[in-house]
Amino acid sequence: MTETAAPDYHQMWAELGLDLPTHDALLQAVGSMYGDAYLTQANRPKGTDYLDFVLSEVHGLRIKELADFRKSGGKVFGTFCLYVPEEIIRAAGGWNVGLCAGAEFAYDQVEQIMPRNTCALIKSATGFKLAKVCPYFESSDLVIGETTCDGKKKAYELLGKMHNVWVMELPQMKRPEDLAMWKAEIRNLVKKAEETTGTTITAESLRAAITEVNDKRRALRRIAATCTADPAPISGKDRLLATQVAFYDDVPRFTQMMNALADELEQRVANGQGVAPKGAKRILVTGTPMALPNWKLHDIIEKSGAVVVAEEMCTGSRYYTKLVAEDGESVDAMLDDIAEKYLDINCACFTPNQGRIDDVIQMAKDYHADGVIDISLQFCGLYEMESHNVEQAVRDAGFPVLKITTDYSMEDVGQLSTRIEAFLEML
Amino acid sequence: MTETAAPDYHQMWAELGLDLPTHDALLQAVGSMYGDAYLTQANRPKGTDYLDFVLSEVHGLRIKELADFRKSGGKVFGTFCLYVPEEIIRAAGGWNVGLCAGAEFAYDQVEQIMPRNTCALIKSATGFKLAKVCPYFESSDLVIGETTCDGKKKAYELLGKMHNVWVMELPQMKRPEDLAMWKAEIRNLVKKAEETTGTTITAESLRAAITEVNDKRRALRRIAATCTADPAPISGKDRLLATQVAFYDDVPRFTQMMNALADELEQRVANGQGVAPKGAKRILVTGTPMALPNWKLHDIIEKSGAVVVAEEMCTGSRYYTKLVAEDGESVDAMLDDIAEKYLDINCACFTPNQGRIDDVIQMAKDYHADGVIDISLQFCGLYEMESHNVEQAVRDAGFPVLKITTDYSMEDVGQLSTRIEAFLEML
Repeated sequence: MTETAAPDYHQMWAELGLDLPTHDALLQAVGSMYGDAYLTQANRPKGTDYLDFVLSEVHGLRIKELADFRKSGGKVFGTFCLYVPEEIIRAAGGWNVGLCAGAEFAYDQVEQIMPRNTCALIKSATGFKLAKVCPYFESSDLVIGETTCDGKKKAYELLGKMHNVWVMELPQMKRPEDLAMWKAEIRNLVKKAEETTGTTITAESLRAAITEVNDKRRALRRIAATCTADPAPISGKDRLLATQVAFYDDVPRFTQMMNALADELEQRVANGQGVAPKGAKRILVTGTPMALPNWKLHDIIEKSGAVVVAEEMCTGSRYYTKLVAEDGESVDAMLDDIAEKYLDINCACFTPNQGRIDDVIQMAKDYHADGVIDISLQFCGLYEMESHNVEQAVRDAGFPVLKITTDYSMEDVGQLSTRIEAFLEML
Repeated sequence: MTETAAPDYHQMWAELGLDLPTHDALLQAVGSMYGDAYLTQANRPKGTDYLDFVLSEVHGLRIKELADFRKSGGKVFGTFCLYVPEEIIRAAGGWNVGLCAGAEFAYDQVEQIMPRNTCALIKSATGFKLAKVCPYFESSDLVIGETTCDGKKKAYELLGKMHNVWVMELPQMKRPEDLAMWKAEIRNLVKKAEETTGTTITAESLRAAITEVNDKRRALRRIAATCTADPAPISGKDRLLATQVAFYDDVPRFTQMMNALADELEQRVANGQGVAPKGAKRILVTGTPMALPNWKLHDIIEKSGAVVVAEEMCTGSRYYTKLVAEDGESVDAMLDDIAEKYLDINCACFTPNQGRIDDVIQMAKDYHADGVIDISLQFCGLYEMESHNVEQAVRDAGFPVLKITTDYSMEDVGQLSTRIEAFLEML
């Protein structure tokens, strides 16, 4: 993270109110995790240089861009969840960025305000805020939460005492009346975004935002599609990272770089060139999202000789598979299209959620998976609870399944490696 | 539970498909818990004889009434949560009963289908179903679930594979649009109830049901009101039991018996007669519901010499405080009244939930509490997570607070007694 040539951002971080010594220690830790997980990989596509660059500047250049944007009057929106439509924020002239999570941080402080048995994602995000080490949080003029799970719903009440937080209500079913409610909630977001930026959404700005964000998703879909090939031309780890970066990078630049990467990957597929030998075991992972820098499971799986060919996750197919229709002619029609696209994502927060089971099985087939690893963050009531039905259906469809419950600590890496290696040998 | 004179219900239980030996063991265990917690109390009001009788017949007479009702064409609705309006079920000619929970049962089977770290209420209810020992569940033609928490939302998917289950969607906020959505959901319940019973709800039947259920709540409110006196004329344990029984007993009979109890309690207050000496420490409890036979905390608190004067709980004030308006003139107007009353209950499933904080503080004042005990079931994400803000506000209002996280096991009784005694001494 702290490459020799990197500019010194300490003043910028101080201006954001970060705790500098703690933040320095964090960056060093993430840099070392990144080096160990990413820079040790063989046969990486050249296009991943961009990801290395982005990571080396993860709290640097991008934060500077946000600061410059804000100095010129722009508004930054922090989000935790893919159900907050970035099209609307962009159409109102705002930028949105995912907030920090993915690593254990300041849990001692966190556990003073929330139960120890809260999922790692929520504890981590709260810890980054309490310890003042997330420049994305501190750069956000408004944090937009959502009611996707009990933990986050209540965490926003706690975070709301420390920051400007506004919460969207997501329905819990997908019936016509839920879609109607969600369409109304999308209008509430429009109002809030417009109020925050002072810019009214127009058909032009909304159409442009829809296309821009669709283009980003299309680039990620191209990358994903190359992983149906054997050998897979890119590691799961790099593909996961691309999706993680998609949550906060500059949209047109990211899209351009990902399309360049996709070009290269398509060429590698044509040449039969892979990151792992042809015939390496192919794993589909499904479950709770993996926030940057949580690369733990992918790292274990791929260091065991297998390849993660796809993620049925919020940091995976749920993020990029579905696109907003591009033929809406009025703001109203486009907002309805946005509502429909987002409600069509299959998160465990919905009941029933057969759509997710169908997605997992279809992806296992499409990506020629040898096995499925179902990964839940401990204390994630939704995914933990849903896993019984998911795993049963996936097994019935003929795919071996390994269930893993873990968190962001590194204490169980040895034990997980043993279990994963045993699973891979069985395939 | 198995008093000598009690009739033999084994054939009825066998017809319901109960596992008879396991069920016998359960009844014996509950009977012994009841004896230890309830029959050891001194100065009990005479009206609690009815509660003793009901408990002695908890899986007997009441189940026979349900069986007879079903034989005559009646339909029984099982529910887990006070947000399912019993007025509508009754207006459609149905009866509703709360389902079994409140004790550890068949956790070995439960943990095969849901995570070990699921709250005791959900594990217990699922265990009773898996082990076939809940005659209320087996007597239910339809179980009506609700989306009040992540755990239950997903548990209904699992229970739906074993029983006829239908789920209501509760909004997560209380804005006008949420009330509109909830009003529509109430209409969905009307349709489902009418479909199930074959009886159409009329203004007459709905008005009668509203009055009947309000009368039940009014009786419980009378009982509660007597506990503002010092000495309190009835133990918290008995008052808790009355609320637990309210969930499944015959409505007019229960109301009549509770009004008789209230008459007696009002007389006791007039006479200065209490269950504990005047000046005994007065405790308000708040938190997660206590399903029958979960009497653990009340038992510990009252055996330590204090009196529980009120419960800000689903098995407490949330159940009986608010009434449905009685001046609705059409079915539509009454359904709106029902929607408004139920959405006005302050469960931790809503965000924000300042209303609950206000309720707790107001009750602490009204009942002259010396201290507040905030009780959460372990792994209840909502109440556990909300407790930080609740406790802070209650302390700021001048009331000492003790936070307890527990489950249905008896292993921590010693430890809890020590903590509670220390808290009481501090008051």
